[in-house]
Amino acid sequence: MTGILLDISSQLFHRSEFSATALERATDAVIDTLGCMIAGADDAGVAAVTTAFQSQSAGGGSLLVTGGKTSVSIAAMVNGTAAHALDFDDNFHPARAHASAVLVPALMAVTSADSPISGREFLNAYLIGLEAQAAVGYGVNPSHYNRGWHGTSTVGAIGAAAGVVRLLGGGNEEMAQAMSLAISMASGPKGQFGTLAKPIHAGIAARNAVEAAMLAMSGAAGRLDILERPQGFLDLFGGEEARGWADWRLDETCIIESRGLVTKLHPCCASTHRAIDALLDLVHENALKPEDIVAIDTKVGVSAVKNLAYLSPANAMQARFSMQYCLAVALEKGSLSLADFTDAALDNPEREALMQRIGMHAYTAAEERGHERLAHTVTLTLRNGEVLQKERLHANGALEMPLNSQQKRIKFANCLAWGRMTFDQTHFDRLADLGRQQSVYALFNWFLSTTAFD
Amino acid sequence: MTGILLDISSQLFHRSEFSATALERATDAVIDTLGCMIAGADDAGVAAVTTAFQSQSAGGGSLLVTGGKTSVSIAAMVNGTAAHALDFDDNFHPARAHASAVLVPALMAVTSADSPISGREFLNAYLIGLEAQAAVGYGVNPSHYNRGWHGTSTVGAIGAAAGVVRLLGGGNEEMAQAMSLAISMASGPKGQFGTLAKPIHAGIAARNAVEAAMLAMSGAAGRLDILERPQGFLDLFGGEEARGWADWRLDETCIIESRGLVTKLHPCCASTHRAIDALLDLVHENALKPEDIVAIDTKVGVSAVKNLAYLSPANAMQARFSMQYCLAVALEKGSLSLADFTDAALDNPEREALMQRIGMHAYTAAEERGHERLAHTVTLTLRNGEVLQKERLHANGALEMPLNSQQKRIKFANCLAWGRMTFDQTHFDRLADLGRQQSVYALFNWFLSTTAFD
Repeated sequence: MTGILLDISSQLFHRSEFSATALERATDAVIDTLGCMIAGADDAGVAAVTTAFQSQSAGGGSLLVTGGKTSVSIAAMVNGTAAHALDFDDNFHPARAHASAVLVPALMAVTSADSPISGREFLNAYLIGLEAQAAVGYGVNPSHYNRGWHGTSTVGAIGAAAGVVRLLGGGNEEMAQAMSLAISMASGPKGQFGTLAKPIHAGIAARNAVEAAMLAMSGAAGRLDILERPQGFLDLFGGEEARGWADWRLDETCIIESRGLVTKLHPCCASTHRAIDALLDLVHENALKPEDIVAIDTKVGVSAVKNLAYLSPANAMQARFSMQYCLAVALEKGSLSLADFTDAALDNPEREALMQRIGMHAYTAAEERGHERLAHTVTLTLRNGEVLQKERLHANGALEMPLNSQQKRIKFANCLAWGRMTFDQTHFDRLADLGRQQSVYALFNWFLSTTAFD
Repeated sequence: MTGILLDISSQLFHRSEFSATALERATDAVIDTLGCMIAGADDAGVAAVTTAFQSQSAGGGSLLVTGGKTSVSIAAMVNGTAAHALDFDDNFHPARAHASAVLVPALMAVTSADSPISGREFLNAYLIGLEAQAAVGYGVNPSHYNRGWHGTSTVGAIGAAAGVVRLLGGGNEEMAQAMSLAISMASGPKGQFGTLAKPIHAGIAARNAVEAAMLAMSGAAGRLDILERPQGFLDLFGGEEARGWADWRLDETCIIESRGLVTKLHPCCASTHRAIDALLDLVHENALKPEDIVAIDTKVGVSAVKNLAYLSPANAMQARFSMQYCLAVALEKGSLSLADFTDAALDNPEREALMQRIGMHAYTAAEERGHERLAHTVTLTLRNGEVLQKERLHANGALEMPLNSQQKRIKFANCLAWGRMTFDQTHFDRLADLGRQQSVYALFNWFLSTTAFD
């Protein structure tokens, strides 16, 4: 039996050379994800997952970001939930997914003390998993995401399953079968955004990726044409405008070089970022003070409006999905930090008044058709009657405007501080040397135990 | 926050009285499922799931049909896969699901030696889980199933999660949240039919049911309006003609009394059963021999045609989804048995010739619209030119034409024999006394160890 999945995995399977740039960006992504995982380790979602499976935790050797060890599946679920808990982890446009929040915990879960996996093998598997996410996403996005599917939980898990098979040393057909089985597990309605279920989706996806990979390596099998066949992935999950895979082929240049990831600078839904950045650009360029601004309006993508359903958020999780809240805080403080997303931080009547003056509009479906991306626009009406406008096609942290090394280090240190862990430069340097490590398990174990929760 | 899930669980939560008939039918379903689980325990899908998670199996106390004990999640997945491996387990029309193949393994997985659950509590939880499956299915079926979703894996898991919460002693809101979280895990494209992934779907669904219930009991939460809200279950999984839940309310009469389950008499896809029964009716009524028949034609539902994609099956799993194969065997032998669905049994050139003369046609979408069910028709053309026709709205084993006690016992004994286990009447009698047992765990443990694989 043949099919697109076999085509994708055959091409990926024979990719073994990665450029220095690709490996460096993968290393950055792993470090950024570890930081987010630690910052999120104390979250209510993580606590729920940990408590739920406490009785099943005995006997495993997979590392938990919350301390201790557990089974492969539970480690993937807990760490995946932690990585995405604060919505501070990276975005990957080709998959419309929080790529690393699924990939890194899934890969980490299958590393063990017994059979050491080198840093280079880990990065290779990460890059294969990322490329597989892009390949699966190619045929269905942006239609899939716009339709209401949480790409992190669907496309993310399917692609990550390929990466896990790579790490486990599986063959070409096992890689395709792991993706097929992950499709049989893929879910995640975006209607859950703004609740604990959203970060748990990343945990579920990481669990699905490792379980689908392990099942495929043990002889379980679905159809290899399940992406494209009737009653398959495209059919059920594609949305109306999905293009399928007829034109897909693997580029010579790794997707992490050609498209890159978006490393988040703000700890809130990515749908707010371009507007936040445009607002702060206008504030800086024009030396504005909050009181100079009478009204803010934003024009954003259709999916962004759907994601940002909370005009007046009732808790920290909803605040991450509120354009009004995020822009108000950005204007008030000049930046957004993890401390702005706690239930206590929401209690601010002055900010409520400001939020009332923030509007959000969407492109029409007709305007969006045929465009993978359109700029987000912010329009400010000033007290003096002046109207200022700024467009942003990319957020800070995207390939086109990447974070510099100091911004990355500061974000990592902030994440560790938020997780009540001790940061020192040694941690950062040794993690940055990931590609030359003999055993990633030993590295992660060292890192998690030396930074241990106080 | 309110929503349909809370409405469903509130009504279910207050249901505590079950009629003797309801309890008796639930007991029958549990016994039938145990039989199917044992018959399927040796299947390739079960072997794959067992092998995949061997390293995670230490420390759990949940019973495995393949022998030994493991964690809750893995027991649910292994036993669920076994229950559905041979496609001999029951159907439940309101959910368009193999209801018991998900429910029984999920409930069984959370029983333990430490905190005994009585037979009555187990049956109550089964009936709640079944009713929850019906309630969730009400709003989306048959559109959901016809669209291409494997109801067993989607609606089955969501409803079963409610049953598991009942067994774990959770509250009303936890029951609703378990269903919400199960929606975040629900998948299963019908494109996988005819592969090992199909029975594994039942295993995944049982796993999802227990994990969603455990998560909800530990404080994880999604939205309670996720069935009906934009980007929720109806929106993404409903299909074009789904009606939603505006008219839903819990009937006074249990669904197991008003609609019942369909206990399978033939070990193959339910979509073949009405045609098989109609064919055998015609054969008996007219004392036909196989050589009297020149051609067979069947008219069946749209989803049946989609399910039965194998005109010339290449292996036993595909044979279960082949109308041609199933009718040919039925004509040849007068009945279908587990022994007819092995790879070796397929090698029969004479039967191939007969299969060429069997046609299958579907109702048009227009004919089906507005009908939850239409009769399946078999038309025989005889050598003497005569044409015979028979319609069947229900298969043998449905509420309208239930199996008698001897048929049930013979099926159970055949299942045990197929699983190379020793059957004696004591087993059947003691299982039939399920509702009066102090500890279902003790009962199942006794049953599985006394019948142990030889």
